[in-house]
Amino acid sequence: MALIVQKYGGTSVANMERIANVARKVIRTKEEGNSVVVVLSAMSGETDRLIQLARQAADVPDLREYDALISTGEQVTITLLAIMLNGMGHKAKSFLGFQVPVSTDQAFSKARILSVEKDAILKELDEGRIVVVAGFQGKDADNNITTLGRGGSDTSAVALAAALNADVCDIYTDVDGVYTTDPNVCAKARRLDQITYDEMLEMARAGAKVLQPRSVELAKKYNVPVYVKSSFSDEGGTLVTKETKGMEKEIVSGVTYDRDQAKITVIHVPDRPGIAAAIFAPLAENNIMVDMIIQNSSIHGFTDLTFTVSRKEAREATRIIADAVREVGAEKFEVDENVAKVSVIGNGMISHAGVAAKIFQTLFREQINIQMISTSEIKVSCVVELKYTELAVMALHDAFGLESAR
Amino acid sequence: MALIVQKYGGTSVANMERIANVARKVIRTKEEGNSVVVVLSAMSGETDRLIQLARQAADVPDLREYDALISTGEQVTITLLAIMLNGMGHKAKSFLGFQVPVSTDQAFSKARILSVEKDAILKELDEGRIVVVAGFQGKDADNNITTLGRGGSDTSAVALAAALNADVCDIYTDVDGVYTTDPNVCAKARRLDQITYDEMLEMARAGAKVLQPRSVELAKKYNVPVYVKSSFSDEGGTLVTKETKGMEKEIVSGVTYDRDQAKITVIHVPDRPGIAAAIFAPLAENNIMVDMIIQNSSIHGFTDLTFTVSRKEAREATRIIADAVREVGAEKFEVDENVAKVSVIGNGMISHAGVAAKIFQTLFREQINIQMISTSEIKVSCVVELKYTELAVMALHDAFGLESAR
Repeated sequence: MALIVQKYGGTSVANMERIANVARKVIRTKEEGNSVVVVLSAMSGETDRLIQLARQAADVPDLREYDALISTGEQVTITLLAIMLNGMGHKAKSFLGFQVPVSTDQAFSKARILSVEKDAILKELDEGRIVVVAGFQGKDADNNITTLGRGGSDTSAVALAAALNADVCDIYTDVDGVYTTDPNVCAKARRLDQITYDEMLEMARAGAKVLQPRSVELAKKYNVPVYVKSSFSDEGGTLVTKETKGMEKEIVSGVTYDRDQAKITVIHVPDRPGIAAAIFAPLAENNIMVDMIIQNSSIHGFTDLTFTVSRKEAREATRIIADAVREVGAEKFEVDENVAKVSVIGNGMISHAGVAAKIFQTLFREQINIQMISTSEIKVSCVVELKYTELAVMALHDAFGLESAR
Repeated sequence: MALIVQKYGGTSVANMERIANVARKVIRTKEEGNSVVVVLSAMSGETDRLIQLARQAADVPDLREYDALISTGEQVTITLLAIMLNGMGHKAKSFLGFQVPVSTDQAFSKARILSVEKDAILKELDEGRIVVVAGFQGKDADNNITTLGRGGSDTSAVALAAALNADVCDIYTDVDGVYTTDPNVCAKARRLDQITYDEMLEMARAGAKVLQPRSVELAKKYNVPVYVKSSFSDEGGTLVTKETKGMEKEIVSGVTYDRDQAKITVIHVPDRPGIAAAIFAPLAENNIMVDMIIQNSSIHGFTDLTFTVSRKEAREATRIIADAVREVGAEKFEVDENVAKVSVIGNGMISHAGVAAKIFQTLFREQINIQMISTSEIKVSCVVELKYTELAVMALHDAFGLESAR
């Protein structure tokens, strides 16, 4: 008997019919002899509807209240599924974040999980119940409701799987797995049977929206096998795990892109210690995620500092760094929202030279100018002009022969 | 500086515009130098929508899950009001039932309040915040969400007012006070400036829907002055309190009716001790409220036992008593759903003879047959055929001269 955590996203619980579909899948898993913990998102569109209400109520909603408001979406889906399961003759019990409890810090609207208590859930599982947990939400030390930010339900599911020492965490979504690239952009995209945590992490960070990066980080940290599946089909699926078979042969496993990017350049900064801290500390304090950071070698004691943030946070970021930019004696700063990031990801890059070179050659052949470059052991990312996103993705997918199976 | 609890019902928070109206009223009260605790219902229609979803999910929804589902309605309105108040520059904080906490028993969907913790709320008030509490909900000893049943938000408000030792509990609703009878039925209905707890209690129990009987019981028990007001007008209002001025002169203060009645008659029961217990104990165990009970004197060792329940619960009631009826050796039982209860209420009845006689004469004059009679110190109730409800109300309102001010 295995302990299985199953997470269903918003499109999988969009209406009563689809929730009934989820109920049947859950019951099948239970009847196969497994203990089942289900994690649900809100009905698709519901969180956005609630966010709209919050924005109608105030231009800048109080975040404590905002979290308590938008967490109701998951409360509705988990109770409806539990009602349905009980109605179908299977004992089920819903758990809200504060009931598990899922303890988080106090960063409302983007809280981080500190701990997940397993005892109450294990007790229900021992008594033969199906447990249905609200994704996306937790509670802080003062009993306030917190939410984990967009896609937080994936993180909830993996955190629960880790705490419960589950055998697998199934993430049901509206696609049937992880692809070499976005099939909407590149028809040659191919579904991967397996992918490592690190690759998935880089792909998620680089813009692939199948799994939230935080959930993959957690899965890696606690070695939770994550299976990405379609909730509308029993075919396919991608296993995200520590090691993939035949890995030695793989060099590149995917090409991703992220259009939600804005490039901020702080121009003509005096090159002295503490500059980067002065700029980035206030951003971190305001929970603004900085993605790529590039600082050129200084010329005559001055340098330029370029970084990217989510386009949605670009304005807030510039507001926050305005003072710091003056204080460090920089000439000015510029914001370019007309950019995208294209990344090539592969576990095999570590031991294979020439991947970066091939990327640059490919983009050059397509006459795409590279504005920023950033590399990790298993990823090369390039910032390019927004309009070249698709072209760059298709050219790189071709260049690395990703359409054919490993 | 007074501590004021204000409760706004579903029509008062039906949309963003009306919530903004509530926000302005709350701010005005605060700016007059008062500490304000606001209790809200869900947007009108929302609780019904959620109940519909629950019924779509299962014919007989699991009540623990049902409560967690339908409690989301209040969670939405309190957080929206708190967001609005904060956006308008007034510090405000919402409290869910489990956050206060409002502790209840475990009778899901009709839980009773056991205690209300005041410390967390008082701390916020001391710091100058407006506190916005979700009506209708609490938590049981196992941290499950419970709801108080229909109209439970009134009870929440009064319970909070009692716990906080508030100076007054304002109940804002869509009518501007308590009337001598339902203005929709009798155009001569007159708004009362004051009414005693006991009168209000009898009126609420007898079908007047302005306040939930439980909330009036609580108000009486803790001597909380309750002010029933319109949320759409600053005029009018009825103060419900221990004593009304000039009370000596009053005999009758109102006529009420309740169409949600069904009459159940257990026929030809052997008249021996324990019969009533055998019939009513199982109903109580199943949380079915029995209203009027009449047992005739026995003839030849047999009697008939008649009682009324909510029409909505009539079928469940008959199912529950079927076994007991057989066991006590009764011949059979009959259910009549074609009845209504009409009541005349007045604090002065205690010391004035002839009120009951006047009621019977009035109904006789209108050729209305009285099927059951029940009296208390300040109330006379008659069960009549459903179709005579309006006629009986108007005739009695006239007979006691209620259209003219006290």
